[in-house]
Amino acid sequence: MTATNHISEWAEAILLRQPRAIAKAATAIENRSAESEALLRVLWPHTGKAVVFGITGPPGAGKSTFVSALIKELRAESKSVAVIAVDPTSPFSGGAVLGDRVRMLDHHADPQVFIRSMATRGHLGGLAPATMDLAVLADAARFDAVLIETVGVGQDEVEIAGMADATAVVLVPGMGDDVQAIKAGILEIADVFIINKSDLAGASKLESELQMMLSLAHRPDNWVPPIVKTIAKEGQGIAQSLSALRSFLSQGLLADRAAARWVPRLEQMWKEKIGSCVSRQQIKEAAAAVARRDRDPYEIVNEWFKQIRN
Amino acid sequence: MTATNHISEWAEAILLRQPRAIAKAATAIENRSAESEALLRVLWPHTGKAVVFGITGPPGAGKSTFVSALIKELRAESKSVAVIAVDPTSPFSGGAVLGDRVRMLDHHADPQVFIRSMATRGHLGGLAPATMDLAVLADAARFDAVLIETVGVGQDEVEIAGMADATAVVLVPGMGDDVQAIKAGILEIADVFIINKSDLAGASKLESELQMMLSLAHRPDNWVPPIVKTIAKEGQGIAQSLSALRSFLSQGLLADRAAARWVPRLEQMWKEKIGSCVSRQQIKEAAAAVARRDRDPYEIVNEWFKQIRN
Repeated sequence: MTATNHISEWAEAILLRQPRAIAKAATAIENRSAESEALLRVLWPHTGKAVVFGITGPPGAGKSTFVSALIKELRAESKSVAVIAVDPTSPFSGGAVLGDRVRMLDHHADPQVFIRSMATRGHLGGLAPATMDLAVLADAARFDAVLIETVGVGQDEVEIAGMADATAVVLVPGMGDDVQAIKAGILEIADVFIINKSDLAGASKLESELQMMLSLAHRPDNWVPPIVKTIAKEGQGIAQSLSALRSFLSQGLLADRAAARWVPRLEQMWKEKIGSCVSRQQIKEAAAAVARRDRDPYEIVNEWFKQIRN
Repeated sequence: MTATNHISEWAEAILLRQPRAIAKAATAIENRSAESEALLRVLWPHTGKAVVFGITGPPGAGKSTFVSALIKELRAESKSVAVIAVDPTSPFSGGAVLGDRVRMLDHHADPQVFIRSMATRGHLGGLAPATMDLAVLADAARFDAVLIETVGVGQDEVEIAGMADATAVVLVPGMGDDVQAIKAGILEIADVFIINKSDLAGASKLESELQMMLSLAHRPDNWVPPIVKTIAKEGQGIAQSLSALRSFLSQGLLADRAAARWVPRLEQMWKEKIGSCVSRQQIKEAAAAVARRDRDPYEIVNEWFKQIRN
């Protein structure tokens, strides 16, 4: 069997949504293997049908419970769902208390639900490309919806969520001043605001704060992000959340947005591609020389640059 | 005046610690201007004297108050201090309540204290190189200590803190399960653990949890991170924190560590350098083509790669 045959058979198995082929591809993507790139190029023409939802927000807002409720809602519509958890605090990523993890097992048993957690460490520069490639994989495997869960604090994670077709930012009442700062950072990527645990004190206060913020901000696409109150643990407000996300998608803004979200993604892919030109060994030796102060780091980087141009 | 003269005069003013020259350089570094690279190459031979401390931890742990107390401690020793705040929730970055901001003003009035906040957004791929270049700038301007404050949740921020000579991870009792997950992620970069707000209930529990974690983990350098309890607001435990950081530095591990921390830094510099080969316009056009599904993103990236090689 030639390498090309191997890839095309593998791709075919993915298009037929065979779990083992998908899992193997996901691992290859996470490892950034050369094979995964070849595979993705074969899969690419078969993609573009899935809707990609980003779900982000600060730790403790109940993102995972919200994602879990969203899966249930989508399954009730007979939609298949792929979840990519980039959130280190997500039960999907193993960062949860036992209770949550058990709750997740319901979905794990369902063949129409594919769950993959991304290790958020050891992916220097590669976290966003790997996540987006997993979304391409899920799309090729004909999952109707792809949910990307990130913790909306780090820059990478916020950017990843913002690459989705529609992004929900999950907040929770009474998180204090730190959340104020976080909210400002993620404001621009929120297509829908979710106030989760909305039975807690402070939900109305948070809602009016958000409304005030929204009345001051103006998005270039004129979209005014709706605010949906949920109690994800009890399934309350989930259908409304999904409608809100879909109403954003139905605004006909998708073509522009799709182009816009490919900008950071191509940038990331480019940096990853080019980053691989210098070997680990070269970098290690250079680092030791700089640490000994034998070399100047700016000079080294310029030298590498000249090397790949010649 | 030639360009070279301009750069060397500017560098000279920085070596003399002239505030305006430093501020101008910091802005050039943040903007990733070509001038800043030329400047840094001139400054480089004059660096290597400052000690760089990383301070990271989850939002709400009181990192900024800890940093503020650390400045006070260092100033009491007549050391000059540069602070680089990469933390969007830090009062140094403007993300604080008024009370904190007012407290910071004490330091702002002191010419031996230089404070710079980094915008954490809009620095795609460039956040780490810019932060490290600011540390080089502060080092050249003969600041004795450089404090880099990051919020230890995002991948970038954790990596930046880990590039310091010695890194303190600031935790706080009773932050629940989310912190459990965060702790695991930042465990490997902590040279010293700070339990801040240690008068709160749960401080002893957190301490024994950390001790258990440390007894299970084994660092390649055999260092066992000390745990220091502080009440930063009242200045308690700050001298001990500084001693703990210094005891790590005095282990004679610094040469190895310096080489190790240059590995991610060179990687970041390399990606940034090379990322700039493709113009915004090229990326935008490519993004539109991919969004229309006229082009395959993997092919585009390969094409760019061929272009710079020829």
